[in-house]
Amino acid sequence: MSVKIATKTQVETVLDKYDTFLFDCDGVLWLGNHLLPSVVETLTLLRSHGKKVIFVTNNSTKSRADYVHKFEKFGIKASSDEIFSSSYATAVYVDSILKLPKDKKVWVLGGSGIQDELKLVGYESIGGSDPTYNKELDLDDPESPIYHLDPQVGAVVVGLDTKINYFKSAVTMQYLNNPEIPFLATNIDSTYPHKGLKLPGAGTCVETIACASGRKPLTSCGKPNPSMMDAIVKAHKIDRSRSIMVGDRLNTDMKFGREGGLATLLVLTGIETVQTLNQLEKDVQPTYYSEKLGDLFELLQ
Amino acid sequence: MSVKIATKTQVETVLDKYDTFLFDCDGVLWLGNHLLPSVVETLTLLRSHGKKVIFVTNNSTKSRADYVHKFEKFGIKASSDEIFSSSYATAVYVDSILKLPKDKKVWVLGGSGIQDELKLVGYESIGGSDPTYNKELDLDDPESPIYHLDPQVGAVVVGLDTKINYFKSAVTMQYLNNPEIPFLATNIDSTYPHKGLKLPGAGTCVETIACASGRKPLTSCGKPNPSMMDAIVKAHKIDRSRSIMVGDRLNTDMKFGREGGLATLLVLTGIETVQTLNQLEKDVQPTYYSEKLGDLFELLQ
Repeated sequence: MSVKIATKTQVETVLDKYDTFLFDCDGVLWLGNHLLPSVVETLTLLRSHGKKVIFVTNNSTKSRADYVHKFEKFGIKASSDEIFSSSYATAVYVDSILKLPKDKKVWVLGGSGIQDELKLVGYESIGGSDPTYNKELDLDDPESPIYHLDPQVGAVVVGLDTKINYFKSAVTMQYLNNPEIPFLATNIDSTYPHKGLKLPGAGTCVETIACASGRKPLTSCGKPNPSMMDAIVKAHKIDRSRSIMVGDRLNTDMKFGREGGLATLLVLTGIETVQTLNQLEKDVQPTYYSEKLGDLFELLQ
Repeated sequence: MSVKIATKTQVETVLDKYDTFLFDCDGVLWLGNHLLPSVVETLTLLRSHGKKVIFVTNNSTKSRADYVHKFEKFGIKASSDEIFSSSYATAVYVDSILKLPKDKKVWVLGGSGIQDELKLVGYESIGGSDPTYNKELDLDDPESPIYHLDPQVGAVVVGLDTKINYFKSAVTMQYLNNPEIPFLATNIDSTYPHKGLKLPGAGTCVETIACASGRKPLTSCGKPNPSMMDAIVKAHKIDRSRSIMVGDRLNTDMKFGREGGLATLLVLTGIETVQTLNQLEKDVQPTYYSEKLGDLFELLQ
């Protein structure tokens, strides 16, 4: 059974056992634009104890640089190399695993975060946030990009695009008619919590393209993909046995931590409840749970 | 094995055995805007022999009235009651099987054909081709329809919407948060052949909403759904044993005919080839195949 963190001694044990703390962001640090209680204090506490903190998010619409700004707005200090977004994980995958030649371009159905991260590892991308595509598909226009596919495109990346439309989907599908062009997903979360609503997540964009093209993505680069954990372990030289993943979702965050060989801490400020926790089989229970992340700070006082 | 229709005698046998001819349209009568050879002559021949002809299409973007105009443009005479579109099949399903009360509205993600057919059976629909939704989702607008769901909506219909965007998907998803509201698909074809291209089909719109809402459609009303065949048999009082379904797709048209207890004729002017035909198990082989529908006329000369 998961241990509930409810006493000062338990917090001290956690601080003693782990050197590295990985955090999901939305539902753990904040909910939409609302910072959760005692989060800044908890992160300050961890840093003052010499702990390494790393932020891991499946939101691909932002780059790591965008995330640094978002953290600043909440009064949280974080550097770019402490942040792992699915946009970054995808760029790393294209570069290190796909080994796409640098003279090839990437067609993106998704936000600017993906394009910014691809650019940092040396790839030109097209599509994405280009306003050319923010209109209806016009098959009567001989100049339409649907008739002029770029022969330099060597990979297709699909993530959450909150401006997705039929035109973009139709062009993405044409690129995937070529079976030589790999199809990558940044992540496959079905929903995207925003401003108190559940909105369509990256998974809906991926499913549209999978159905149209008759192809499944080669991989989904974000959580819970173990290649994202491998990249984090390698970049920060962390000891998995002395690391803990903190998150609010069982099927992404907790799975990601557990299968990556880390301890896990579920917080109940996001998706899950005590009820969903109690329904779990013993072997997939998180190591710990707490009402909120801020309890680590508050219980120590 | 399927019998290839290649002689005058074989055509005479077909004319002798069947009183009712059901036709898929795209890939059988025409390809996009291009009428296929000897189609008008074949239909005239069948009518002159006293055969009943019925047209069955999964394209839900048009109503039956729209189809009559499309037939006229090709010089084919057809009346509204000879046409069964998935838009009509969906309206019949909402009315006769779902028995949705007439004071309820239907939220439509799809084209005007669905709305026109719903109106004919007495339902008001919203969404659909309303230009209000042809823009980006604006969560900062307190007047956005996403915050003002219509409490009269009692069903959601999803079909092909060539103007689909994130705003429409997000609103559709909000209606489906209510588990009491049934979710219907007009059809689930993954692709939509148009102007020589393969474009995203109704199935891609359905998959988007299924992923976002975590729900599967209650049913898909078009081919190969047997309830569409039941409606045709009932409306035209046809004898299934003396009827034949003509189509270009194995997984919709031929399945629809075979499982509906009809003979089947595959034409090779659309999706399938002799190769795909030869790969079939014996029990799913169509009764007949021919290079094109017009062979029925040409071989008789």
